[in-house]
Amino acid sequence: MSRRRIRLDLAYDGTAFNGWQVQKKGRTVQGLIEEALERIHSHPVRLTGSGRTDSGVHARFQPAHFDTDKLNIEPQKFSIALNSMLPGDVRVIRSYETAPDFHARFQAVERGYRYYILPGRNALPFHRDFCWETRRNHRLDLLNRYAGRLLGQHDFSAFAAAGDASPSKVRIITSASFIPEGDMIVFQLSGNAFLWKMVRSLTGTLLELEKAEAHESRISEILESRDRSQGGTTAPARGLFLDFVRYPGEPGGTGFEYEELK
Amino acid sequence: MSRRRIRLDLAYDGTAFNGWQVQKKGRTVQGLIEEALERIHSHPVRLTGSGRTDSGVHARFQPAHFDTDKLNIEPQKFSIALNSMLPGDVRVIRSYETAPDFHARFQAVERGYRYYILPGRNALPFHRDFCWETRRNHRLDLLNRYAGRLLGQHDFSAFAAAGDASPSKVRIITSASFIPEGDMIVFQLSGNAFLWKMVRSLTGTLLELEKAEAHESRISEILESRDRSQGGTTAPARGLFLDFVRYPGEPGGTGFEYEELK
Repeated sequence: MSRRRIRLDLAYDGTAFNGWQVQKKGRTVQGLIEEALERIHSHPVRLTGSGRTDSGVHARFQPAHFDTDKLNIEPQKFSIALNSMLPGDVRVIRSYETAPDFHARFQAVERGYRYYILPGRNALPFHRDFCWETRRNHRLDLLNRYAGRLLGQHDFSAFAAAGDASPSKVRIITSASFIPEGDMIVFQLSGNAFLWKMVRSLTGTLLELEKAEAHESRISEILESRDRSQGGTTAPARGLFLDFVRYPGEPGGTGFEYEELK
Repeated sequence: MSRRRIRLDLAYDGTAFNGWQVQKKGRTVQGLIEEALERIHSHPVRLTGSGRTDSGVHARFQPAHFDTDKLNIEPQKFSIALNSMLPGDVRVIRSYETAPDFHARFQAVERGYRYYILPGRNALPFHRDFCWETRRNHRLDLLNRYAGRLLGQHDFSAFAAAGDASPSKVRIITSASFIPEGDMIVFQLSGNAFLWKMVRSLTGTLLELEKAEAHESRISEILESRDRSQGGTTAPARGLFLDFVRYPGEPGGTGFEYEELK
């Protein structure tokens, strides 16, 4: 039977989701979209995302793909059909036909995250599910010196959650900086790939070091230890957004290409 | 008994509120804060806001005042006490002692609103309760020409909701412009005061005129008619934010002073 591969670019508010991945119980992004796809196709359809997000983590832009035998549906119309069936906390930004060998996860060359920090205790009501209220002021100069130590290729074992199953913990960080945005501070981080809870444990650790006014060499020591107990606490999920995922030949992201470690 | 007047500056997400004003039924901003104040004082305390907002309308900054006989509570501590009792969709930004004759409503000299328009159909999930998805593109040049016609003193009867009880419908608009902000268009409007649903009916009307490519003189004709049936539809509540309220001698706002019509 003839088939087409369709790419979806998704955005979601992770607050009311038990993360991306389908589970036996609980409301998940993949689960809701697969249910809608099954209604369209009258048979189960598997959706493959660029990666998983944890419960409470948001996505401003997350690609995914599926194969369809519904050749009478124009590829760009899947977004309209799906959005009419999905709740408002997940939206298909666009849908389009992609190469039959496109793979949302394995072909991604760069992923970008943004972590929103509110240096105070009272987030505006519109922001409360989308930032971490740290209840203190922060030193951007120190945070950015720490962030600079993350750039390049490192073994990130010290920042991987216990359940991370990746055979190698080596990842390449292509950008890392703390920038002010309105009342918030945003930790912008991108790289070829990330370990489980790595962005949140990096955020938590860097803020702890900043509070202690630690020397930036401490980051390198923690990395070299490859020991999770050397790292700091994991920042809450609600401040974290998957910001972009980039594939070879696409614009956007930081422009980084590192085919060897894809 | 000795008393102090306390000013609260509030922010709220209006989505789950039946507006500002206490009602027999329904969850209101004034109602929740008065309940918390009663718990602190062990007797009813009346909270006076700078004005009322309708169901679904948000406030980034809304002042209010109340009188307290709890002289042992430092004025700036009311914000901490109240925030610990209030749900996350309403926050006290700060609390402080004000002059005993301060009045949050009658002394306000300028109010600013922002109306968020999304020229498309798919608001990001984080924005869905905070904008109007108009499902089309807009001509900023035309919209700003219409907005210019609103500046100054006019009788706004054509833009007042049927139930508006104001004896005079004359108001002064001190700024009115449509500006791009990210994917959105924001209608920024400020003036000495506003009639019931006036910002939303102005927004709805200006967008209808723009769709019809009407000449800007049409705005003046509608104003001069003083006839609500000449105006257009009322834009949805969810796009509207009360952005600031300013009192004499305070910075902020557009700097407008027009004591005669206070």
